[in-house]
This record gives sequence, structure tokens and C-alpha cells, in this order.
Amino acid sequence: MNQIKNAIGRSLPEYVEGYGKVKPFAGAFATEPDMTRQAPKVKRILPGEQKLVEDLETVFKRIPVTNGMTLSFHHHLRNGDGVVNMVLEVAAKLGIKDLTLAMSSVFPVHAPIIEHVKSGVVTRLDTNYMSGPVAQAVSRGLFPHPVVLRTHGGRGRAIECGQLKIDVAFIAAPTADDYGDLNGVQGQAACGSLGYAFPDAQYADNVVAITDNLVPYPLSPISIPQTRVDYVVKVDCIGDPKGIVSGTTKITRDPVGLRIAETTAKVIKAADLIKDGFSFQTGAGGASLAAAYYVRQMMEESGVTGSFALGGITGYMVEMLEKGLFRNLIDVQGFDLDAVRSLANNPNHLECGADFYASPFNMGAAVNKLDAVVLGATEIDTNFNVNVVTGSDGVIMGGSGGHSDAAAGAKITIVVANLLRGRLPIIMDKVLTATTPGETVDVLVTERGVAVNPRRTDLQEQFKAAGLPLKSAEELKQLAEQIAGVPESIKTLDKVVAIVEYRDGTVIDVVRQVG
Amino acid sequence: MNQIKNAIGRSLPEYVEGYGKVKPFAGAFATEPDMTRQAPKVKRILPGEQKLVEDLETVFKRIPVTNGMTLSFHHHLRNGDGVVNMVLEVAAKLGIKDLTLAMSSVFPVHAPIIEHVKSGVVTRLDTNYMSGPVAQAVSRGLFPHPVVLRTHGGRGRAIECGQLKIDVAFIAAPTADDYGDLNGVQGQAACGSLGYAFPDAQYADNVVAITDNLVPYPLSPISIPQTRVDYVVKVDCIGDPKGIVSGTTKITRDPVGLRIAETTAKVIKAADLIKDGFSFQTGAGGASLAAAYYVRQMMEESGVTGSFALGGITGYMVEMLEKGLFRNLIDVQGFDLDAVRSLANNPNHLECGADFYASPFNMGAAVNKLDAVVLGATEIDTNFNVNVVTGSDGVIMGGSGGHSDAAAGAKITIVVANLLRGRLPIIMDKVLTATTPGETVDVLVTERGVAVNPRRTDLQEQFKAAGLPLKSAEELKQLAEQIAGVPESIKTLDKVVAIVEYRDGTVIDVVRQVG
Repeated sequence: MNQIKNAIGRSLPEYVEGYGKVKPFAGAFATEPDMTRQAPKVKRILPGEQKLVEDLETVFKRIPVTNGMTLSFHHHLRNGDGVVNMVLEVAAKLGIKDLTLAMSSVFPVHAPIIEHVKSGVVTRLDTNYMSGPVAQAVSRGLFPHPVVLRTHGGRGRAIECGQLKIDVAFIAAPTADDYGDLNGVQGQAACGSLGYAFPDAQYADNVVAITDNLVPYPLSPISIPQTRVDYVVKVDCIGDPKGIVSGTTKITRDPVGLRIAETTAKVIKAADLIKDGFSFQTGAGGASLAAAYYVRQMMEESGVTGSFALGGITGYMVEMLEKGLFRNLIDVQGFDLDAVRSLANNPNHLECGADFYASPFNMGAAVNKLDAVVLGATEIDTNFNVNVVTGSDGVIMGGSGGHSDAAAGAKITIVVANLLRGRLPIIMDKVLTATTPGETVDVLVTERGVAVNPRRTDLQEQFKAAGLPLKSAEELKQLAEQIAGVPESIKTLDKVVAIVEYRDGTVIDVVRQVG
Repeated sequence: MNQIKNAIGRSLPEYVEGYGKVKPFAGAFATEPDMTRQAPKVKRILPGEQKLVEDLETVFKRIPVTNGMTLSFHHHLRNGDGVVNMVLEVAAKLGIKDLTLAMSSVFPVHAPIIEHVKSGVVTRLDTNYMSGPVAQAVSRGLFPHPVVLRTHGGRGRAIECGQLKIDVAFIAAPTADDYGDLNGVQGQAACGSLGYAFPDAQYADNVVAITDNLVPYPLSPISIPQTRVDYVVKVDCIGDPKGIVSGTTKITRDPVGLRIAETTAKVIKAADLIKDGFSFQTGAGGASLAAAYYVRQMMEESGVTGSFALGGITGYMVEMLEKGLFRNLIDVQGFDLDAVRSLANNPNHLECGADFYASPFNMGAAVNKLDAVVLGATEIDTNFNVNVVTGSDGVIMGGSGGHSDAAAGAKITIVVANLLRGRLPIIMDKVLTATTPGETVDVLVTERGVAVNPRRTDLQEQFKAAGLPLKSAEELKQLAEQIAGVPESIKTLDKVVAIVEYRDGTVIDVVRQVG
């Protein structure tokens, strides 16, 4: 197979069987949209007609779900999700084959997918993130066709722009009325925002809501409207609350993590962003929250009121909203019970869809308005390309999610990482899998120093003036190698098990099978 | 020109110059959708790019607005609207010709349109309702091409289904941020819901927000999202608050009106609808509000909690929400300051778009869930066909608005009317202009008796049992004629000045020029 090189020098096959022609990544903003929006068939329902259907099997027959269709799912129930497995059981029972699963994320709870692939019920997967047994099985070549890995904004884009055509969207709905109005803030499986399901509901040919909390019409608030929902199915339980939301996420106590977090806050301050209107995104992990902690100290000291915090929302961000440190939260996914409660009750806590959050192809996603984003990495190279897909053993253990989207949008994108991960350097000449291109990553903060992308000479100047411990990425790499040695490169087989699409739909890398 | 007859026996030309082939009305639910959704070109904006433009003229040049385009406007600023005239002045100044105006409604304040038609700037009009000088001029043959009259739901359908293609939507935005998030509940020109502009924002090729209240990003709440707005223009004033919202609308004091209203409430009760979950729509006029007053008495007496009130929302409905008589309001348009305040503050007061409100071609508009709707009429015939377009002189003085939509959706559709309007019978053998088909009208309530559509034998039985003063439509017509004589039929010229489209896009009637 002929190989081509994309704009960051990754070698890609020109064509991948089961995926098609590869459109190589050409630069973070080099590829422009050249299509019209996805246009589903117009449907109607007559007054008096009912949407409530007794069970999923009946829905399958009414639609009807047939071999080769694409079924979509959102991941707000995370590792507590009961809907994917429930739907696939029905598909298997009815003898349906060759399904594509379009899941915004895959979790350990979704392990039964493996058996459905082995039996031919499922043959393709399209997702933004995966962890657990399915991810590991993908790396070992489980699927007959390569998995497509997208970003959260890229999935929204692919659905709206017609590259990811959904036959049936199954929406896990913590609360629904009998006419298909849905929200995620009420019910025993309340998960908060339903944002990742917004594009599915808007553009799928058929939309099925699955709920365990059916309430009288009309539901309020409405996150997904009746006008796009064809069927409503009431089941006993859509998910396990323990797996859906965590308790309050705690700030890390690891002293190295705290030092990195403190330096990160100093970086943001040195970039002159801690001022009224400041906007911010950070992850839900303990180290990311620690960065928020130090940023908050600075905001409080300077009496700054931020405009918004974005992304996956935690109780810590809710607290900052409630204390007046941010005017708004923009929430595509809630991580804990505080986030759910706040979205339900606070009008300044806004729910948004994946497209509004992060799509590169509309008239302006929220990531475009970000001042600063703090992101993680499993690997980063001296050109600042980041890997968040594969681990040090080459096995898939994540995915971009909103990583590439926020990196592309923010004024300053900061990757935080310990110099070593396990016993291996995190900085190298070339990451195994490129997820987020280096041109969208501005700063790397480690416990041994701060490296600035040479493209950002403005930041170099500011950071030097602020007395930050600057080093080049090469220097940090050498430091790491002095401690841990030069790691052996990972050996992979030839078979492409996953295509890593950049948010614009071009291919930034491929993942090959591990031995 | 060959004539055809539609399903209610109206004679229509097969083809109308400047409109095209006539698709005759075939029955309220006989015409099914056979298209895909409108698919605008996908666009993008890069991080850092601005949407704020200094003035409208610059926006016209950037888009660019050219001869023959369709410009759309919403009517929530009603007779206080300053945006339509402002935009057309720029078009005239730039020498643009042959524009189509797609306005959800036309008010007296829009009289300058007449001069723009005379000068060729505007040559077509597409609207759901019109009153005042423009309506009168249309009837006298002002426009070179026939005006298209739609329903509120029909306009939403036409935009979503691609029959009304909008080149540029101009959205009067009482409040906006610089990235194009919009709402109608804040600012000096606050009008409440922006629902009629939702389809425009969703499907227009270009969307321009015009605001006099620019606030820091992000706006909250957001009614129309940044992802669909291309430009934001700040002007001094988008409208005159006195023309936008009225004070508290008062219940009629006219004893005949009160008697009709009381009978209307008895009709709803006799139909066994006054029970928990009751849903209701009525107009904003004094007589319609009086019906709400009597319905409310009954609800209070029976201890009934309704589900929702729908449509244009008044302070009276807000009071019923606040007293717990309805769980929710679903608001496509607010009529007074109480409606604006309530939408801004009460989470059970839901804003909805024209499509969610009333479109016949989606997976379920709110009108489909209505128990009872109370509607007016300028004429009604013995087949229950209603005219709300032309007055007794044949001149256009209204339009369907949501009339046909709510009539088609509700379990019981009640038309209320004084037997005489001015000195003329309101009931006749054949209305001059059919707007709402008789098959969707169940009951006519007058001060001299109640006529039930013969299709509804179930209601006949219930009303007889309840002791309501039943008469046939023919009997009511004779009563009216005994008082006022048989009116002379109106003489019109041949020229078709307006096409009356039913909500599904078929032609239910045409309006001909008056002498």
C-alpha cells in the first residue's frame, strides 16, 4: 500500500480497507468545509399518535433496524451506562449483523461489545474515547474494520456535515415525557448535560429515547426536544448512578502534581490572562483541578471575575461559579452530583451541545473563546505533538475527547505532565500516536521546567520576564532520559486498527495492532 | 388560465405567474412530507476572528446582499419594530433590487415597505399575518408578484423543508454578545420569546443579529446560539418598547363577549377536558382572555392542575402559571411585560421555536398535544371553514398566524364570534377567503347558540347532555340574516394578489385584488 506523509510528518496509508481514502491532516486550520449540512428525511406525526412503545424489540421492528445500520449512543452515563448493552442484546437476539456503533465514548462497562463483534453483530466502531476491555481488544485487532477515533467537536462536525450518518440514535434519557422531550438533570440516573447527544438527536434518521423516569407532558427543562424524537421506551433502569457520577472530585495531594499545577497558574498569569473576562477549561482529574485551585487563588487575589469555564464540569467549577469567580459555566458533560444540581438550578450554568462546545465547522464553537486550557498527555514530542490515544505499551487507553478541540481554540494551550510516566520519559522525539498537533500546543509544564513552543515567541518573552523556569523541549527530554534512559520504541504490527481523525476530518495518524 | 378545485371546493388557478404551480389543498392531513431537510452550506470561523461589524452597510457588502435575494425577519417587536425599515433603507441606498421579504408578520409600522415596492427594491412578500397600510396596499395590487400567506407552523415547515430558502436572516436581538448568542428577555427592547426566528437562524445561509444591547460573552440565557450567527451589528435602537409590549391585557367588559366566553368554558367542560393535565391555547384579545377567565374558574372549582398553556403568552397566562393552574407555559411569542418577566425568571416558562410550536412536518409540534384552543374568525361558513385573512370589504387585514396550526392539533377547536360583525352576519354559505379548513374546526360559539361540526357526533352527544344551547350552523346563519339581511357578495377583480398556503404548503385559497 502506498504511503503518504501528512503535515506533521506521520506516515499514512493512502487508502485503508474498511475506511476508504485517507485525507491527510494538512494543518490545524488548513482544511475548509466544502459541504452542505446533513439533511435527514422530513417526517411527521399526526395529532393523537403515540410515541411510547412497550419495549426495545418493538422499536427495532417498527423502524426497522436492519443489517449494516449505524446506531449511535452518548456517554453521559459513563461507566454506569446500561443502554448500549441493552440495545445490543436486542440486536443480537433479533439476529442483526454488521452494525456500526457510533459512541461518543466507550467505557469498561461496555465489555459485552467484544462478544458482539465476535458474533458479527457489530463490525465497526466510531468513538472519541475508549478505555477498558474494548480498547484493549481493539488494539489486538478485534474489529474486522478499523475503528474511527474522533474528537468531541469532530464527532459533532461529522454528524452535522454528513460524514457520520446515523440510522438510529439511542438516547439514554434520565428523564423523558411521552412525546420525547428529554433532560439529564432529573431522575435516578441524572447525569447533568446531555450535550454529546445533541447532534445525534438533530441529524439521525431515527431517534429513540430510553428512559427510566417518565414524567407527564411537558417536561421542563427540555434539553432535547420532542420534534426530533420518534420513539420513547420506558425501562426499569438505564444505568447505575455509582458509575454515572462521582462524589466530589478531590484536588491531588501529590507534591509533584501540586508543583506542576502551581507553575501552570503562573504561566497563565504571566501570559496576562488573569483579568476580568478570563475564560478557562481544565480536566476533571486531581492534577487538573489543582491547576484550577491555583488559578482561583490568583483570581481572588486580583479581584478578577472570569467570563466562563468550559467543558466537562466538576463541583470545583460549580463552586467557582457560585462564588462569583466565573459568570457562567458552559457544560457539555457533568462529572459529579454538584454539576448536575447546578445545571438543574442555576440559570448561569448553561448546557451546550458537542457542536456548540467544539465543532470546527460552524459559526463559532465555545472553544474559540477560551483564554486558557490545561490538558494532559500520555506522550509529547519535541515538536509538541501530543498523544492521548495509546499508552507506553502501544495499547489504546483513551482518545482525544475534547483535547484537540480545546487546544485549537484556546489563546494558550498548556499541557501538564510529570517528566516520567511510570518509569518512562513522557517527552520523546516522536510520539507513538499523534492526537493533537504541536502547532496548537503552546506550553509544556513539567516539574523540572516549562517549555514553550518556539512558534510562540510572545510567550517566551512574557515567561522570561516573569522568571518562569524555561527550558526547551529537547532539554526536558534529555533530563528525562538522564533519569530513565532512552526508552525502546514500541513494536507494532502492520495492521491498522484505528484511524485517528483530527477535528476537521483529516487523518492525523493511525494506530497499528500490538503483538 | 385553467382552474382546479381543492378539497374544500375552492376554485384555484392551476398556475399563478410569480408563484408557480398550485398544489391544491387535499385535506388537513392528506399531504405527507416527501423531502429532506434544508441543508445550508457549512461554514466556519477561526479562533480570534470577530463577528462584530460596524454597521449594516458593511454587513451588506461582506455577505454580499445582491439583487433577488430573500431577506427574513421575525415579528416579536411587533408594531415597535425598527429593524425591517432600517435594513430596507440600507438595501435602497445600495441600489439593491428585487428582494423577497420573508417576514413572520407585517405591522402598520412597516408602511415604508410600500415605497420600496414602488421603487423595485422589494418585489415579493412572504408572511403569516399582516395588518395596516402594507396589507391594504397588497389587496390593491401593490406587488408585482403574489404575496404568499403562510401559518406560523407552515413558515417553520417551509424553512426547515427548503421551500422558503432564506439568503439572509436579520434577527432583531434585544440582547446579544459579540459572538452572536442572542436572547429576547433582556435589554430596553425586551420582547420575550424569539421563537419565530428560530427556524431562520437554523436554516438561513447567512444570519445577522442586530442589537441595541451588547453584553459581555457569554450571554445567558441563550435563545439563539452563536453557532448559527455570522455577524453582529450594534445600533442605537432596534425598536420602540411602547409598540413591542402592551401593558396588562384586560378581559373584555362587553356583556355579549362575556356570554360567549362563559359558553366557551362550558363547551370545554362538557367535552370532559377540565381535568388534571388539561392543556389550552387562547388568543390575547379581550374576548379570548374572557374565555380563559371562565376556564380558570372551572379549574379552580374542580381543583384541576393543567399541564400547559401554549402560544402567544399574556400576563393572564403567567398568573395562571404562578398560581399553579398550569405546570408550564410554552411560549413562542410574549404579548406583555409579564410574559417577558416570567420567561426570564421562571424555569417552568419554556421558550419554543415556530417549528416546536406548530410545524406539521416534524416529529411532533406542541399544538398536537393541545386539548382545547379558542380562536377567532372574521367569517365562518356552514362547513366551518374560517376566514381570518380578509375583512368584509375583501381587503387583507390579518392572516392565519397560528390559527390553522392550533385548529389542526387540538382535541377540540372552538371558534368564538359574535353573530354579527359590524352590521354583517359572520356566518355565511361560503367565506370569501378560506384560511382554516372546516374539518379542523369542531365548535362555533356565538351569543345565540353553539353549533357543532357534524363530523363530531361525540361532541353533539356530550353537549346535549350538558344542556348547551345547540343549533346548527345553518340555523345560526338564518338568525344572523334575520337581523342583518343577506349580505351582498364582495366583488373582486381577477388578479391574484395573495396565495393562502395551508400549513402543509398546499394552497387552500387565493386572495384577489379589490377594486
